[in-house]
Amino acid sequence: MSTSEQGGPEQPYHHGDLRRALVAAARALLEESGPEALSLRDVARRVGVSHNAPYRHFPTKQALLAAVAAEGFAALSARMAAVPAAPGLGAPPGPGAPPGLAAGFRCYLGFARDQPGLFRLMFDGTVEKSADPALSAASEQSYDGLRRAVHRIAPAADRAAVVTVWTQMHGLALVTISGQLADDLVRDGGLDALADRAAAILEAGLRMAGAP
Amino acid sequence: MSTSEQGGPEQPYHHGDLRRALVAAARALLEESGPEALSLRDVARRVGVSHNAPYRHFPTKQALLAAVAAEGFAALSARMAAVPAAPGLGAPPGPGAPPGLAAGFRCYLGFARDQPGLFRLMFDGTVEKSADPALSAASEQSYDGLRRAVHRIAPAADRAAVVTVWTQMHGLALVTISGQLADDLVRDGGLDALADRAAAILEAGLRMAGAP
Repeated sequence: MSTSEQGGPEQPYHHGDLRRALVAAARALLEESGPEALSLRDVARRVGVSHNAPYRHFPTKQALLAAVAAEGFAALSARMAAVPAAPGLGAPPGPGAPPGLAAGFRCYLGFARDQPGLFRLMFDGTVEKSADPALSAASEQSYDGLRRAVHRIAPAADRAAVVTVWTQMHGLALVTISGQLADDLVRDGGLDALADRAAAILEAGLRMAGAP
Repeated sequence: MSTSEQGGPEQPYHHGDLRRALVAAARALLEESGPEALSLRDVARRVGVSHNAPYRHFPTKQALLAAVAAEGFAALSARMAAVPAAPGLGAPPGPGAPPGLAAGFRCYLGFARDQPGLFRLMFDGTVEKSADPALSAASEQSYDGLRRAVHRIAPAADRAAVVTVWTQMHGLALVTISGQLADDLVRDGGLDALADRAAAILEAGLRMAGAP
């Protein structure tokens, strides 16, 4: 879009640019102090626009948070899609081959640790996914990626098995970013080892009991 | 203790009674509006004592929240201890026998759903366990119960395997109380079925890959 945003030369944002800048500022504030403390006014201040400027893009704080969460799901999908495909059933990983679920578990954990505020926002119920079509679509696309990955491991896996894989890595991610694991389990690569063991247990379980 | 609390006849609490009343009021407020909104002043008002009265038991809001979380871990331990013991390795459940991990998963999920505010407080890092010896002890006792239950299923299970079981049921509990599961997965006993499948997958995986 070519319409410039309101105001003088100190507010040089074009339409799409301001939207992106607001979402980026909200993401930064989210990591600093969490969703409760965040306000549209703070976001405007961080971006350097008038306190009314955000309302042209986001009528409410919830709408802005939904846009932030949608961006988070897109980023998560992109990171998970870059994980090397897991070997299928009956094709155990050879030397150098990526272990099945473990690479995905490590990736998901890494995403949560890199931006814990965003990760919590995406899943803690602060934003209502069904109220925002773009967020709903981004969230579903992210889950579809997980479903495909599980089906490469266990083609007959049903919905409950996919939920099991997701909640396993999700629980591990949440207790990690909330500081609930003993230090010696986490440091010096311990968390990767933990993710690998959890993935191995799940993968063995899926092959035995992944289908009803 | 027999010393009565300060104030007139409208404050009839004895020492231990007031402490208990403050913790109970904090638990109730926690479920109503979460830990950020809770203040010692609100808790005093709910109990009907002067706004200074809580300080004799809890110097800070964090100290009160730690006492609430410790009570939560004691309650969780008691509920989990009442779950029928799982059959050991090589002793698959016969007709009428309790399924291995599934009963524990259902119990943990039920605890989270009954008091989601308390459950979150216990695990989300709001209170620092190591800063409060009573909380730390209650939390460790609760985890010990889980460890014993896992060892009844898979005697050789190491620390990583125990963390895997915990984070599986924990992840399932958190996405449930945060409304992240599709409605049709949860309603009409769906959540119990989901807990049973997750437990079955974990249990099969533990038997295959529970020890390093």
